[in-house]
Amino acid sequence: MDIYDKIIDLAKRRGFLWNSFELYGGAAGFFDYGPNGCSVKRNIENTWRDYYIRKEGYFEIEAPTVGIEDVYIASGHVGGFSDPLCECVECHSDFRADHLLEAAGFENAGAFSLKEIDEKIEKNNIVCSECGGKLGTAYDFNLMFKTKIGPGGGRQGYMRPETAQGMFIDFDRLLIHNRDKLPFGACQIGKSYRNEISPRQGVLRLREFTQAECEIFVDPEEKTHPEFSKYENVTLLLYPRDEQENEGNPIEMTVKEAVDSGIIAHEFLGYYVALTYDFLTEIGIDKSKLRFRQHLRDEMAHYAVDCWDAEILTERFGWVEAVGIADRTDYDLKAHSAQSKTELSVYVEFPEPVFEKRFTVRPDMAKLGPLFKGKAKQIGDLLKYMSESELLEYENKETATYDLKIENELYKVPSNLVSFGEETIKLSGKTIVPHVIEPSYGIDRITYCVLEHAFYEETLESSETSESSEISDTSEKSEKESEEDETRTVLRLKNKIAPFSVAVLPLIGKPELLKISKQIFESLVDSGLNVYYDDTGTIGKRYRRNDEIGIPYSVTIDFETIDENTVTIRDRDSMKQIRAGAQTLPEKIKEMIKTEYKIE
Amino acid sequence: MDIYDKIIDLAKRRGFLWNSFELYGGAAGFFDYGPNGCSVKRNIENTWRDYYIRKEGYFEIEAPTVGIEDVYIASGHVGGFSDPLCECVECHSDFRADHLLEAAGFENAGAFSLKEIDEKIEKNNIVCSECGGKLGTAYDFNLMFKTKIGPGGGRQGYMRPETAQGMFIDFDRLLIHNRDKLPFGACQIGKSYRNEISPRQGVLRLREFTQAECEIFVDPEEKTHPEFSKYENVTLLLYPRDEQENEGNPIEMTVKEAVDSGIIAHEFLGYYVALTYDFLTEIGIDKSKLRFRQHLRDEMAHYAVDCWDAEILTERFGWVEAVGIADRTDYDLKAHSAQSKTELSVYVEFPEPVFEKRFTVRPDMAKLGPLFKGKAKQIGDLLKYMSESELLEYENKETATYDLKIENELYKVPSNLVSFGEETIKLSGKTIVPHVIEPSYGIDRITYCVLEHAFYEETLESSETSESSEISDTSEKSEKESEEDETRTVLRLKNKIAPFSVAVLPLIGKPELLKISKQIFESLVDSGLNVYYDDTGTIGKRYRRNDEIGIPYSVTIDFETIDENTVTIRDRDSMKQIRAGAQTLPEKIKEMIKTEYKIE
Repeated sequence: MDIYDKIIDLAKRRGFLWNSFELYGGAAGFFDYGPNGCSVKRNIENTWRDYYIRKEGYFEIEAPTVGIEDVYIASGHVGGFSDPLCECVECHSDFRADHLLEAAGFENAGAFSLKEIDEKIEKNNIVCSECGGKLGTAYDFNLMFKTKIGPGGGRQGYMRPETAQGMFIDFDRLLIHNRDKLPFGACQIGKSYRNEISPRQGVLRLREFTQAECEIFVDPEEKTHPEFSKYENVTLLLYPRDEQENEGNPIEMTVKEAVDSGIIAHEFLGYYVALTYDFLTEIGIDKSKLRFRQHLRDEMAHYAVDCWDAEILTERFGWVEAVGIADRTDYDLKAHSAQSKTELSVYVEFPEPVFEKRFTVRPDMAKLGPLFKGKAKQIGDLLKYMSESELLEYENKETATYDLKIENELYKVPSNLVSFGEETIKLSGKTIVPHVIEPSYGIDRITYCVLEHAFYEETLESSETSESSEISDTSEKSEKESEEDETRTVLRLKNKIAPFSVAVLPLIGKPELLKISKQIFESLVDSGLNVYYDDTGTIGKRYRRNDEIGIPYSVTIDFETIDENTVTIRDRDSMKQIRAGAQTLPEKIKEMIKTEYKIE
Repeated sequence: MDIYDKIIDLAKRRGFLWNSFELYGGAAGFFDYGPNGCSVKRNIENTWRDYYIRKEGYFEIEAPTVGIEDVYIASGHVGGFSDPLCECVECHSDFRADHLLEAAGFENAGAFSLKEIDEKIEKNNIVCSECGGKLGTAYDFNLMFKTKIGPGGGRQGYMRPETAQGMFIDFDRLLIHNRDKLPFGACQIGKSYRNEISPRQGVLRLREFTQAECEIFVDPEEKTHPEFSKYENVTLLLYPRDEQENEGNPIEMTVKEAVDSGIIAHEFLGYYVALTYDFLTEIGIDKSKLRFRQHLRDEMAHYAVDCWDAEILTERFGWVEAVGIADRTDYDLKAHSAQSKTELSVYVEFPEPVFEKRFTVRPDMAKLGPLFKGKAKQIGDLLKYMSESELLEYENKETATYDLKIENELYKVPSNLVSFGEETIKLSGKTIVPHVIEPSYGIDRITYCVLEHAFYEETLESSETSESSEISDTSEKSEKESEEDETRTVLRLKNKIAPFSVAVLPLIGKPELLKISKQIFESLVDSGLNVYYDDTGTIGKRYRRNDEIGIPYSVTIDFETIDENTVTIRDRDSMKQIRAGAQTLPEKIKEMIKTEYKIE
């Protein structure tokens, strides 16, 4: 068993992750979060909210997961969101064509055209791995789940492939909400869907998954970040494009160095690369297994300025992309603007008015009106947008008129009714289409990586294996689990991420202990903590179970609790214990949780 | 404008609710939660978690929203989850046939068969309300959104119409997670989907909506609740079946009275009716606008024992169903058991062993073995399950054998190798299929009702209309909004539900005030509060804005803050103010939030 198998095994046994639809034989690309997994995922999501909503002050919204077609035509997903698919002509198994070629040794197969794929399959005699049959020609399979909205034929709908479009199409509402000012950010945490051809990477490639995305709308000319100093000295492991192309290695440097040297395109992007580092390490990703890889030029969308992936090192899958941080320029807003025929822009006031010289044409509308009646406005507009050379072109010096043809009708405009020349214009602002900085987090992958980085197996000294067994209930001694178990599995989750903050464990099942244990349990729950209660099995067995779930502290209630109103607090990581007063326990535990206190 | 329109108007202006896909003309049955709406909804969901997960100790899970067909065949949704649909033969508009009949004056149209619907439409000459055209025959339109999972033809999938099935199909995993003991509950908060024919009730009838459902698995013979005393004296407004049928009125009584008199079927149901009352009033539903209506016999699913809806009174829509609390018996588990051919049950140990008399047949396998070789086991099994009369039927007294025919082969079993008779059997437990108690909450409807019940318009005395205007920035006085505004709109949301806990408002835009305001803002954020910062417009205007958003406290920073390190705290509801020290502000605000403190 490699570590992935060990974690999935623990995740199944301990209620973190279960195969979806197991009762009916399952379905690839779907996972259920069990109670402990759900709690860990919730804690990660709420920490994300802490960063982006509460501290950055951005707006969380919740848009539907079902989308109408216009949205995904504009976003490009209807046209271009697909993977190349090959079907076996004999057994009808489906394969991702680029994966077949990768398996056959081709690098960069993801960049091949359908024609190239067909040629390479033919030439290299690649056949169906299931039955050895011939493979059909490759075609593009669109990865959106399709559905119909409403009765009858229904309206074409799609399950969203990303949450981002919800923020883009609400841009106007959001801008008003921010009182027409830039920058501001809008976020969404929710389900997205990709109908993968044959998902085979377990919990790392899901057909239904959770994203946390933030779209930050900024002035294209102001990509400095007012709070940059907060993160500028954070040291990151960066893997710039040039290093990748020239077989170099990732480099350690501060965010400031990276921005100053032009490796990261600008401060705003640098700030969110660093914030991502802060967030990921805060929830328990191992610093030494985290790097930021810049997208190669041909990997990045054509409109993007720069893009960095937070990659997390896993044992089985290597460096896994968990977050993407991109400068998407004005691509998204312009695309929706074109599709919806609505201007999506912001009027930005200059700090001080700007004076600009401009060639200006001023038709005398008061006189043109009576002269040309219903056509006067059209004639005036035509003149207004002419340059000096155009005016000369239409000038008829003989009749002192501008001879304009509109719909094959000739209009002779007296030149004395038109004045022109360079004028100084006062501009107090301008209308711009904001650029979008997008940090996009894959919550399921992050959750898995947090489990993997928290996973420890320890060989215990014999003195440790019998932890507390001398005081355990004699009637349950027969299980002898503590004597046989010589490895301890422990999830060293951060306190804020653990499924429960504290466990309450009556030492044995005597009624007087159960009674006081319940009272202590209630006092901890009332103080707002997530508390686990467990009175089954020996105390040693319960400690091991809690270690596997990752509960940082266990509170044991024994006979001294009755006599002296004190309890034992045991530390998950060191297995060391201290005694503490039951009266002030909630405050003590809350303080320990907050400060990640370790009993040494 | 009725109150619904006023709330939707406020909700749009203030970032609570926006029509989805507005940029593309919208789509009926979909709403976006804007930043403030999203925050309110999140707070309601987290309070729900507080009740069901943290305090009841039930298990939250997260299963996919895409489901495979087997699940919804078993649940009955593939076969029976539909509304009757009529299409106009001329303009092809779609109508819900039962709604057409209701509009035409038929009561109970929801119970009509398709044939009855067609007859009544014909007889009463009901035509298309859009074009006056003839209506086609009614047919059942399935309300599940359909999709295909995977490439090629794909596997039939559905967007889940409720979250409940996720808990049912995980029953085995959940039972192990609870160490094979009853009762336990499993919950899910998430999106569900119903492809409504023509949703016309705004935010109250959505095609994509959020449910919070809890499935509690109980021993069918133990529907008492160990904590019943916690809620037994809660007084509820109940509308029992009998009162509805005999044109009676809702009755006030305690939960205990309702259970004792048999109005509510049992304690377990009564407990969750009362907990629902507790939850709804805790988040701000007006007690006087909340009742519990029992389902009529023909309204309730055939398998259900009893079902109560929490109904909330709204101005436009009357009593709105917001929560359903049902005893669904063993229907769901048995249905999945049959569809998956897997036993879904629990072995329940008796408190003490039970002795039962049973007719038992004991074939002497040690002798039948050598006699019948490979057929011996089959013969033995056949005999074991025979009753006394069956044994007599097969007895051949002449040959002293039992003559059994298996696959047309005759086997003569010597009767001295078979003993039978009544025996006393010791039973230490039994295998049962648990019953399910299901509280199911519609989060969107509840969120809307919370807004409606918190909505107040107040006509202000002239002294109040000029609130703080004498100290507001003179440069902004021209707006004079406080003098013109004579009604104040205020959302009196509960502190724990409000989108922000506190607003920080520098009195005017002077740099020294902005600087200290930012520091105070940071100190509040650092303490874990949701803090709103606003420095635009007059202070009076900002107070009004915060009243509309429902922020309970506003902290105003003025020149005394600089001199004496004190701030003003203003109460949203009373508009009264107190001064407080800036140093201890975070603790003070947290205490005020927790205790719903009002400044009088």
